[in-house]
Amino acid sequence: MIHPPLPVAIAVVGSGASDSAMKPVAETVGRALARAGVTLVCGGRGGVMAAAARGARQAGGRTVGILPGTGPDDSPPNPSIEVPIFTGMGQARNLAVVLSADVVIAIGGGWGTLSEIGLARKHGRPVVLLGNWHLELPDKVDDRNLVHAKSPEEAVEIALDLARDGPRR
Amino acid sequence: MIHPPLPVAIAVVGSGASDSAMKPVAETVGRALARAGVTLVCGGRGGVMAAAARGARQAGGRTVGILPGTGPDDSPPNPSIEVPIFTGMGQARNLAVVLSADVVIAIGGGWGTLSEIGLARKHGRPVVLLGNWHLELPDKVDDRNLVHAKSPEEAVEIALDLARDGPRR
Amino acid sequence: MIHPPLPVAIAVVGSGASDSAMKPVAETVGRALARAGVTLVCGGRGGVMAAAARGARQAGGRTVGILPGTGPDDSPPNPSIEVPIFTGMGQARNLAVVLSADVVIAIGGGWGTLSEIGLARKHGRPVVLLGNWHLELPDKVDDRNLVHAKSPEEAVEIALDLARDGPRR
Amino acid sequence: MIHPPLPVAIAVVGSGASDSAMKPVAETVGRALARAGVTLVCGGRGGVMAAAARGARQAGGRTVGILPGTGPDDSPPNPSIEVPIFTGMGQARNLAVVLSADVVIAIGGGWGTLSEIGLARKHGRPVVLLGNWHLELPDKVDDRNLVHAKSPEEAVEIALDLARDGPRR
Repeated sequence: MIHPPLPVAIAVVGSGASDSAMKPVAETVGRALARAGVTLVCGGRGGVMAAAARGARQAGGRTVGILPGTGPDDSPPNPSIEVPIFTGMGQARNLAVVLSADVVIAIGGGWGTLSEIGLARKHGRPVVLLGNWHLELPDKVDDRNLVHAKSPEEAVEIALDLARDGPRR
Repeated sequence: MIHPPLPVAIAVVGSGASDSAMKPVAETVGRALARAGVTLVCGGRGGVMAAAARGARQAGGRTVGILPGTGPDDSPPNPSIEVPIFTGMGQARNLAVVLSADVVIAIGGGWGTLSEIGLARKHGRPVVLLGNWHLELPDKVDDRNLVHAKSPEEAVEIALDLARDGPRR
Repeated sequence: MIHPPLPVAIAVVGSGASDSAMKPVAETVGRALARAGVTLVCGGRGGVMAAAARGARQAGGRTVGILPGTGPDDSPPNPSIEVPIFTGMGQARNLAVVLSADVVIAIGGGWGTLSEIGLARKHGRPVVLLGNWHLELPDKVDDRNLVHAKSPEEAVEIALDLARDGPRR
Repeated sequence: MIHPPLPVAIAVVGSGASDSAMKPVAETVGRALARAGVTLVCGGRGGVMAAAARGARQAGGRTVGILPGTGPDDSPPNPSIEVPIFTGMGQARNLAVVLSADVVIAIGGGWGTLSEIGLARKHGRPVVLLGNWHLELPDKVDDRNLVHAKSPEEAVEIALDLARDGPRR
């Protein structure tokens, strides 16, 4: 089936904890993505996800939240999610988050975020890291598409570059 | 977490076969949903899904396609999908299609559609049927939310009514 | 990859409600499957699933339960499940239940069971129905592999025949 | 529902590549797990998974393979899988692999394995690492249940200890 080029989408992943120190960083990333005309995809919950979505909406961008639960009662989307997707599949939804994006930006994060980095790279999605990540894997793995950024602005710039030549173009 | 009311979303499910006789019906349903300001959710593929999405886009509506594959190469969205979600989970994505809607409209369809009707009702989503469906289940099951409609216009009218009092409101 | 023939596995699906009148039927089915040397696959919960697994274990058969939750706390397997699989994916686990079998036997049941019938037939697994099922689908669909049985004994006999020529052989 | 204690199950995750240098290590791990009476859970494919399952079967142990595909045609289990589970959900099956075990042993591996480590720890399953893993996450995360082992024997010993007090006991 012929289809027009997909709209560029970038996923922001990170901790859902409400006290995450990375929230201002996430808000800046979300805003910059929206200004670049990019759809923000995230897990739809709080913390880094809520901050990124808030930034994106403030700049008039589109926000998609792919949630673990079966509906708003067991999985309320954060207030800045424009398109909520309820999967009912718990953390298996992490796969849909990364596949629905051209590139993934990880802003801090813990074990759930680690799983998203793994799933993204497994499926060829480049990953840009913000925060104190240090990942060394035993297998000889292609690292060119796992990039550390020093600021939210740099992360977005790198992500937009990678999206242009990404696996969905 | 407090969140604003979700935007009303209605899923259209049915055969992906390109020769489905239900395509004109689906296009009418999609158009009517868009005119009512409702987001169209579907499985993102061809046949009934493509026709419904085309109708919705013609009327300026929002269209979400929740796809089985891992990206546009193995799961190209139909040309009228505005927000493509790639799940990489095959037919397990049927669960996300129905959970992401207030009400499901089934327009003809086969086994995949039957699974969506079951998953929708299991999770309390009302289902409106168009086409020659006849479903009798052994368990005493609540039928009030499984409704037969006689025309695309009636299906949309019933669906909008059911959405207003639906499980996500 | 060459692999030895898969062990024959038959899924039993049906209501999880503890008051299901179909429990004696399910127990008979489970016992007969075990006597035929077949692995019983089910959703691992109560009602029909528990009765079928109990029957199978009484006859020394193998029982696999594919559960919706993330572990025994949120998804306790019934006491006759020998191999519990925790998916953490809610009702999306229904897909794994039917795909892990050569044939599916539906013993009564409601909406969840209906979704399993649809997913099974979508993927070419024959389905044997016990109880008051009446299913007519709009699409011209292959009905030869959707068979009504009149007794648990007949259901097992038909299922074993269908498994022999089934999609996994 | 009361249920008897679950049988102890340990997942072995790692590269599916047939040239993995970790295959002898995996075979030793599989054998030791079987001798301890533990069920081996894995992704059912080649490489490390096949080697671990082969070791387990040689010692008479039970082996469960949770596969990404819809059946033996698109997802042939390795020849040592006793109980094949077909999920049809691609890499989302990684969640079921780790949830179906008390503890996870990662033997080398790449991005898919990284996702399994993340999902395991997210759900409280301890992880034992063999091979050159170096993982530092930004969030303050509990590391006590992420343990490096120096040999296959040590990995199994640690895993058995952790299983005894694990999240499913």
